[in-house]
Amino acid sequence: MSVIFMTKRPLDILDQVLNKQPVIISLKGEREIKGILQGYDIHMNLVLDKAEEIENGQIKTLGTLIIRGDNVIYISPSVQ
Amino acid sequence: MSVIFMTKRPLDILDQVLNKQPVIISLKGEREIKGILQGYDIHMNLVLDKAEEIENGQIKTLGTLIIRGDNVIYISPSVQ
Amino acid sequence: MSVIFMTKRPLDILDQVLNKQPVIISLKGEREIKGILQGYDIHMNLVLDKAEEIENGQIKTLGTLIIRGDNVIYISPSVQ
Amino acid sequence: MSVIFMTKRPLDILDQVLNKQPVIISLKGEREIKGILQGYDIHMNLVLDKAEEIENGQIKTLGTLIIRGDNVIYISPSVQ
Amino acid sequence: MSVIFMTKRPLDILDQVLNKQPVIISLKGEREIKGILQGYDIHMNLVLDKAEEIENGQIKTLGTLIIRGDNVIYISPSVQ
Amino acid sequence: MSVIFMTKRPLDILDQVLNKQPVIISLKGEREIKGILQGYDIHMNLVLDKAEEIENGQIKTLGTLIIRGDNVIYISPSVQ
Amino acid sequence: MSVIFMTKRPLDILDQVLNKQPVIISLKGEREIKGILQGYDIHMNLVLDKAEEIENGQIKTLGTLIIRGDNVIYISPSVQ
Repeated sequence: MSVIFMTKRPLDILDQVLNKQPVIISLKGEREIKGILQGYDIHMNLVLDKAEEIENGQIKTLGTLIIRGDNVIYISPSVQ
Repeated sequence: MSVIFMTKRPLDILDQVLNKQPVIISLKGEREIKGILQGYDIHMNLVLDKAEEIENGQIKTLGTLIIRGDNVIYISPSVQ
Repeated sequence: MSVIFMTKRPLDILDQVLNKQPVIISLKGEREIKGILQGYDIHMNLVLDKAEEIENGQIKTLGTLIIRGDNVIYISPSVQ
Repeated sequence: MSVIFMTKRPLDILDQVLNKQPVIISLKGEREIKGILQGYDIHMNLVLDKAEEIENGQIKTLGTLIIRGDNVIYISPSVQ
Repeated sequence: MSVIFMTKRPLDILDQVLNKQPVIISLKGEREIKGILQGYDIHMNLVLDKAEEIENGQIKTLGTLIIRGDNVIYISPSVQ
Repeated sequence: MSVIFMTKRPLDILDQVLNKQPVIISLKGEREIKGILQGYDIHMNLVLDKAEEIENGQIKTLGTLIIRGDNVIYISPSVQ
Repeated sequence: MSVIFMTKRPLDILDQVLNKQPVIISLKGEREIKGILQGYDIHMNLVLDKAEEIENGQIKTLGTLIIRGDNVIYISPSVQ
């Protein structure tokens, strides 16, 4: 059983969603950004492509974005 | 007696709940997320599966989630 | 006299209350948690057993808890 | 396929916009600055040329600017 | 004269008040704690004995206290 | 062309304004200080001479000033 | 000319005011403390003698004070 339930390292999960479906990034200050993850580093600095910010129901197109990791609350790769 | 009362290292406790019952994560900014812990690292970055956020009594399904460790207040593994 | 008045290192004090009487943890954001200290590390990450949070006079049972050290204001081991 | 979808390191992206079209810098405290990126370091400290701050619809000319990296939320290189 | 006016290293001053008269600790969030300093480390983590918190003119007895250093604004050893 | 457009390291820019025209320092908490830059280190700790703070239109003369780097938002060397 | 205009390292400036005229310390949270600088370290932890806090026009005598460096905004040595 212990072979099946292996630990996943948080940053490794990000590899699985690189250049795939869009992810949602929850930022401090109640901001939420959606985009395609193109890269990251150990500080959770992120590169997003086709990024959009949703603000009061309105979508703001941001294009490519480099997010500084210390603003991130969570990353949700399971957008459909 | 000192054999019975051994020190538990905080991050080691997390090993015992990997891929088991859901845990509750209390985040800064009065946010609370519930999910199955799939991984963590020394910064308390966390991977959750089947994550849900409870907000004003409403459950928001989040699926897989990578939480940046500096947002964590506490992790409660004893959900029943 | 200098033999009697020795310096106590802050984290060493915690050893003396491991698995003994409950301690009170004062957290940032005016939160207070009581529980039995089972472990800690150099970041003051803590493991509590039988943890309870007192909020507006109400006791919320939390069970086992891993607290991230950067939320701690102080630890008071002298609960009776 | 894995050759096409390579990881981009966040700071490397910045190289591609050095001394080119203006970028938008989103800063903590809801400030936004636009300018031509002339340099950066691993802390995301930035050098901007021809920088302007947009505040309540008004443009404030700032000229050359050294921004301390810990204030940055994101950098958007895709200004047209 | 330069022999008389020597530099005092901030943490060395704390040695002089260990286990002597009570000191006052000013904490972030406008909290003030008084107690006998029993120990400290390089992060300014502190051990206090006979600690009391003064809140709205009321004294709250806290006994032994381990304060996490990042909450400290200043330590005033000159209580009479 | 790539010879002309070289990367400028943020802290190197500061060398060019040492002991020259006054610079403007934007600090967290909406404070702004103007003065002649006399020195800095890798934390962006700064030494200013002939420093003045502008507060609600009033100029407060501060003379020599050592600013701790973590308060800095940006430094604008292009004051005329 | 470059011999005259040398860089001053921020912490070295503090050496020149040790045990001399009082300095003013501006702290986060709009607090201001005046005192004679007796020591400091690389974190800008400070030792002050004859310290006073000015609050709403009232002077509060604090005596000797160890200030934790991360609270400092600036140090102004040019008090007359």
